[in-house]
Amino acid sequence: MALTVVGSVAFDSIVTPFGERERVLGGSAVHFSLAASYFTQVRLVGVVGDDFGEAERAVLERRGIDIRDLEVVPGGETFFWRGHYDYDLNSAKTLETHLNVFADFEPKLSEPSRSSEALFLGNIQPELQQRVHEQCPSASFVALDSMNYWIDNSRDSLVAAIGLVDALLLNDAEVRELTGEPNLARAARRIREWGPRLVVVKQGEYGAALFSDGGFFSLPAYPLENVVDPTGAGDSFAGGFVGFLAAHAPDELTEELLRAAVVYGSTLASFNVEEFGTERVSRLTFPEIEKRFAEFRRMTHFEHAGLPRLVG
Amino acid sequence: MALTVVGSVAFDSIVTPFGERERVLGGSAVHFSLAASYFTQVRLVGVVGDDFGEAERAVLERRGIDIRDLEVVPGGETFFWRGHYDYDLNSAKTLETHLNVFADFEPKLSEPSRSSEALFLGNIQPELQQRVHEQCPSASFVALDSMNYWIDNSRDSLVAAIGLVDALLLNDAEVRELTGEPNLARAARRIREWGPRLVVVKQGEYGAALFSDGGFFSLPAYPLENVVDPTGAGDSFAGGFVGFLAAHAPDELTEELLRAAVVYGSTLASFNVEEFGTERVSRLTFPEIEKRFAEFRRMTHFEHAGLPRLVG
Repeated sequence: MALTVVGSVAFDSIVTPFGERERVLGGSAVHFSLAASYFTQVRLVGVVGDDFGEAERAVLERRGIDIRDLEVVPGGETFFWRGHYDYDLNSAKTLETHLNVFADFEPKLSEPSRSSEALFLGNIQPELQQRVHEQCPSASFVALDSMNYWIDNSRDSLVAAIGLVDALLLNDAEVRELTGEPNLARAARRIREWGPRLVVVKQGEYGAALFSDGGFFSLPAYPLENVVDPTGAGDSFAGGFVGFLAAHAPDELTEELLRAAVVYGSTLASFNVEEFGTERVSRLTFPEIEKRFAEFRRMTHFEHAGLPRLVG
Repeated sequence: MALTVVGSVAFDSIVTPFGERERVLGGSAVHFSLAASYFTQVRLVGVVGDDFGEAERAVLERRGIDIRDLEVVPGGETFFWRGHYDYDLNSAKTLETHLNVFADFEPKLSEPSRSSEALFLGNIQPELQQRVHEQCPSASFVALDSMNYWIDNSRDSLVAAIGLVDALLLNDAEVRELTGEPNLARAARRIREWGPRLVVVKQGEYGAALFSDGGFFSLPAYPLENVVDPTGAGDSFAGGFVGFLAAHAPDELTEELLRAAVVYGSTLASFNVEEFGTERVSRLTFPEIEKRFAEFRRMTHFEHAGLPRLVG
């Protein structure tokens, strides 16, 4: 199934303890699209200024991503973010945010984007997410991401948007804030009562958890010794997860497939952080992806080892 | 193999959002011993005052724990801790700590305790840990736990004590602080260079990770909807982990067995938090333990699901 994604397209200036980059290609829809492109046909809906050049376009087109709905605002500037990570690499310090053309983003979907069978509503204003959703009546699998800003400022419309999707992806702090429930299992249960049958909780360096009809599944993050730049890891996770599921018919979505999707999401996220920006994910190979999937299995697998003579 | 444990024995007064208890049996050596008692013969070395009564003694003896080396200081008072947990239950607020007889604790080991083949050096002063270790020449498997207080105040002797053991158990913040290394994989590698061939990182609600010759293994925590009292969870984890390993000969400690030990540790920790103090772990049954082990397997297991027709 083709997969339409709506979200931010950005230039990022990033400093980490391992180096820095000025104005590299970024944004949630970009990281998502690149990761998802390894599994299915991706159509990106976003907005840029005319500072967005051929080089950036080429990164997306080389992965076969359809960017016909990447609107260019003449005279406008692309969303710009400048951030800094300390040694713990867990949370970015934002130094500058210029929404630029993204401030007035009104997603416009062409007929192909509207007709995709899968839809990812990236982290934008919940009302916009709902309007995009309404324009995609053929979408049989819809996933949504959001962030604390919308929980704080548009909670009601966010909850309404969530109620209409199949899968919600959030990090653990956001899940707790959204539900007012510190216990993650209870928080996920409450969200599933609102509508989504899948709740995916991103836990950064701790991995990811899936709550579904099949129960609870949890996967640790890949234990990299060298995390270079965490920017976009959550979006790459979402791209791997949704991209893998979008490649299957909705009636094929067994618990086994859902769990494999979490592993593919984590695989893509683990590659994302190995280099700056989109550098690593834009040039992955299938054997690399499959090798890391196998490593995830090796590091989580255990058997029931028989108990010895027991006492007491 | 018999297992000697040295550590604190305490009375805890605990308030959580789910209730409160006054002066219940606690302390690291108590939680550890009860958990380990399901796997092997445990000998507890500790100190109490004469406020430690028959009821407390009975909880330990009913689980077959040898308490001949539980020293009673006449006229002394047992270590007392009063703590409070908020709704997130992740970190305790300490309201009162009275070390009492524990302040001058000088572990005295009887011949049986000295002759155990397995030894757990619970969270006490590193010099004491080393002295106990020296008194146990027959111990072929030695594990050590510590805390940030000793990292801050006795780092050199702690590192020396760690250098002599087979397994180190710490929580993730402690591993980072001890090594000055924010990346957990690198931090664990450094500690393994000091001596221990096993590094177990306790991650609270996120689970536990094992670094060994066999590579990296990670297990999520059991997703309980009702965590009542987290006090002693880390000690119960250690008791399940070390107790299970102590029940096997040292040359049987394959990677498969080490991983099963992490699962048994997590199993005991998950029961620990379901009720206050030692209430739950003191009355477990083997079928309950085996059932939860199986649930851990169900919630972490995944297969490689074939990729569909791929794009790009």
